[in-house]
Amino acid sequence: MAPNSLSVRLEESFTRNALRSYLAEFISTFIFVFAAVGSAMSSRKLMPDATSDPSSLLVVALANAFALSSAVYIAAGISGGHVNPAVTFGLAVGGHVSIPTAMLYWISQMLGATMACLFLRVTTVGQHVPTHAIAEEMTGFGASVLEGVLTFALVYTVYAAGDPRRGPLGSIGPLAIGLIEGANVLAAGPFTGGSMNPASSFGSALVGGTFKNQAVYWVGPLIGGALAGLLYENVVFPPQDTAISQVGV
Amino acid sequence: MAPNSLSVRLEESFTRNALRSYLAEFISTFIFVFAAVGSAMSSRKLMPDATSDPSSLLVVALANAFALSSAVYIAAGISGGHVNPAVTFGLAVGGHVSIPTAMLYWISQMLGATMACLFLRVTTVGQHVPTHAIAEEMTGFGASVLEGVLTFALVYTVYAAGDPRRGPLGSIGPLAIGLIEGANVLAAGPFTGGSMNPASSFGSALVGGTFKNQAVYWVGPLIGGALAGLLYENVVFPPQDTAISQVGV
Amino acid sequence: MAPNSLSVRLEESFTRNALRSYLAEFISTFIFVFAAVGSAMSSRKLMPDATSDPSSLLVVALANAFALSSAVYIAAGISGGHVNPAVTFGLAVGGHVSIPTAMLYWISQMLGATMACLFLRVTTVGQHVPTHAIAEEMTGFGASVLEGVLTFALVYTVYAAGDPRRGPLGSIGPLAIGLIEGANVLAAGPFTGGSMNPASSFGSALVGGTFKNQAVYWVGPLIGGALAGLLYENVVFPPQDTAISQVGV
Amino acid sequence: MAPNSLSVRLEESFTRNALRSYLAEFISTFIFVFAAVGSAMSSRKLMPDATSDPSSLLVVALANAFALSSAVYIAAGISGGHVNPAVTFGLAVGGHVSIPTAMLYWISQMLGATMACLFLRVTTVGQHVPTHAIAEEMTGFGASVLEGVLTFALVYTVYAAGDPRRGPLGSIGPLAIGLIEGANVLAAGPFTGGSMNPASSFGSALVGGTFKNQAVYWVGPLIGGALAGLLYENVVFPPQDTAISQVGV
Repeated sequence: MAPNSLSVRLEESFTRNALRSYLAEFISTFIFVFAAVGSAMSSRKLMPDATSDPSSLLVVALANAFALSSAVYIAAGISGGHVNPAVTFGLAVGGHVSIPTAMLYWISQMLGATMACLFLRVTTVGQHVPTHAIAEEMTGFGASVLEGVLTFALVYTVYAAGDPRRGPLGSIGPLAIGLIEGANVLAAGPFTGGSMNPASSFGSALVGGTFKNQAVYWVGPLIGGALAGLLYENVVFPPQDTAISQVGV
Repeated sequence: MAPNSLSVRLEESFTRNALRSYLAEFISTFIFVFAAVGSAMSSRKLMPDATSDPSSLLVVALANAFALSSAVYIAAGISGGHVNPAVTFGLAVGGHVSIPTAMLYWISQMLGATMACLFLRVTTVGQHVPTHAIAEEMTGFGASVLEGVLTFALVYTVYAAGDPRRGPLGSIGPLAIGLIEGANVLAAGPFTGGSMNPASSFGSALVGGTFKNQAVYWVGPLIGGALAGLLYENVVFPPQDTAISQVGV
Repeated sequence: MAPNSLSVRLEESFTRNALRSYLAEFISTFIFVFAAVGSAMSSRKLMPDATSDPSSLLVVALANAFALSSAVYIAAGISGGHVNPAVTFGLAVGGHVSIPTAMLYWISQMLGATMACLFLRVTTVGQHVPTHAIAEEMTGFGASVLEGVLTFALVYTVYAAGDPRRGPLGSIGPLAIGLIEGANVLAAGPFTGGSMNPASSFGSALVGGTFKNQAVYWVGPLIGGALAGLLYENVVFPPQDTAISQVGV
Repeated sequence: MAPNSLSVRLEESFTRNALRSYLAEFISTFIFVFAAVGSAMSSRKLMPDATSDPSSLLVVALANAFALSSAVYIAAGISGGHVNPAVTFGLAVGGHVSIPTAMLYWISQMLGATMACLFLRVTTVGQHVPTHAIAEEMTGFGASVLEGVLTFALVYTVYAAGDPRRGPLGSIGPLAIGLIEGANVLAAGPFTGGSMNPASSFGSALVGGTFKNQAVYWVGPLIGGALAGLLYENVVFPPQDTAISQVGV
């Protein structure tokens, strides 16, 4: 993609295709957050003290994994299926998305997440919308690092899934993305909630009514996502290199 | 597909291929509902007060996700693998299925679902067949909206999975459909049961013996499914547009 | 495949390729039964009264689903990945496997399953090897019908997965097979155990030391598997028909 | 791959592509162990006596399955996605990886695993890092055999996934690998932990501070992995043979 002047880039951000991609991000983020936050509400309804039970963690982790796979899948040919400001940021850092486009993706994602939380609160008659929270003994710094590591893995997987050199493995990209999301929620759920997604944390905070520790869910994921993009593009698999093998050999 | 007169359309609905596709819908819906309703019976047998336990929710959600993936898969090359009147309706609204064919799909799906519930009751020696129910504090309207949102996500995913412009991602379509089903059951299970499927709700109500709130499981899903079709076809990814990318970029 | 005289068929059953395929069936059935029966032992170790808990059902169902997908996958290009006498029988009924070959597949599968159960008992220092059992209130006939319906779904999925007319969907065949296995175990676990596999039931009965109700796990699955083959080949998707569509449309 | 003299092989081990592949192994092992060990910490935080609960086993098994699929996926076109010294050893035995390269893969994997455990301990403010352990009644020999059998299944699946003769099934290889990992953890969790991965056992032992039974997690997996490679390459599917079928037939 050749570099363009700002005005051309701005124009590009409002073409018919660009507008379709913002809508696709809005819809995918809405669907993802509806299932992810909804599953947390659902397990709390079943077991009010849900934060201390492994099967509640499973409910939330599987909802995240499954919904993210599908949300990425349905937007894949339209917007690239970011569904997550940290992913968009990580791709912008690698030069795959222009800054104006990235900002409009962010807005679409945050609107989608907020709308999903509003729908959840209204349809469940005012059930409390849960927000991501960090374990008592953890520091904000430790929590940011943890969320950053998790998001590194997620964005790195997005880069791998979108790399045309993967050949036939490209077809399971959305599954690989959903699976690492689920694995990471299982690992970090009781520590930071395993958000990896600033839009989801923002939407649930806005509707849930508390922005406590919100910074943790922006700083960590954005830095982790950016590092993933830089490392993948510049060191592990630079554009000029070719794939040397598939699985195993 | 060019518009035809009613008589031609009716004729088309009884060709050899059409009859094969009704049978395929019957078999797939039977297999799906057998596992979906069976898993609810199974978790109730293990834990009579199963509605208040997250691991019972997992049993039902995974059975729905897994069985729907396979049920769509096995019918994919024959009937399109709708397995759900709301999917058929959403595809009819987009002009992919004619009205007479859609009605015969509906009948096949409702027969399949009912037969599955009958088989379950008989083989388990009269174990109670559970029906979809809404949480005490919810209104019928809220429940319809919730089921509508869930079904929107499901039918939107079906449209994405069937879109030839997706390229190699087409091969995991049935998985994406099953995964969004599972995520949505995890999110809505304790609120409305997460049906998204009027045939499944109808069959279990008929055999279980109570049609309470049945309207919720028809109105919401049909409207949600129709909206998904209209939005996908006319706004997000109209037939004249081309895919701009795969995952990520 | 043209019909041959018995002696030619017998000869075909001992070619180099045929011997490789018996070994592949042995290995895949060993791996599958090791995980399937092992997971039942594992959940009983964690919770001695494991038969009355939904999360134990999840452990067993997911082990079945995951292990069967992989077991089918690793044998797919060699023996076809039956891993199950009912699948072999269902394919023999459709004329895809000759009778002598089918019998040697059966022997390989039963040896693999028995060996897996022996390894489990020895390495876990004599932990009890559990056998499939039917719920107290059920009749042997009802249990056979239930296992038959479950196996119908499984073998039907195998037919769909092996059908070259499925196009790109062929690549996820082993996953579709594993998923329907998992869904069916979730539905039938507390009623019949959800075996669908006579070799697995035989191996665990032999090592576990009780053949009670063994007939249920042969009669039901063999009839269900045969019906699936007959229906798929002759009615739903006969060899002369072509695929009319993929997912959705 | 033609045989080379040692000096040429050593040179090959430090080319640009080789260095990229060590980094890819480091990153993938880091991501995998972070989720696998993290999920064990996470379920212990939720339920301090987590070793005696099936839903804790599910948390760990699914984290292993999901994270391994993605970890293999992201490294597939670069290093082959071993993520495990036993896999590297099994592939070296089959002649797919030279000895010097294998040793550098091992170092990368062990560093990645150790770093992941360090990050977990630091970010969770000194939460105990759990190590793989064997059940009280088991012998070290029995535990080695059990881990060996599990690793046999895993490495055999890696061979199958990397075999170009699999055709379109190649695209789901990383999923098949992750699924057998998950199934095996479900089967062996309460007996040996279901490690199958010496690097993961080493890293958690180093950071967790106890090398008790460490030999079990090296001897078993290395022998099991080597046997898998020898059997696959020389008996079940030698390079000169061709695939005779896909699924089913």
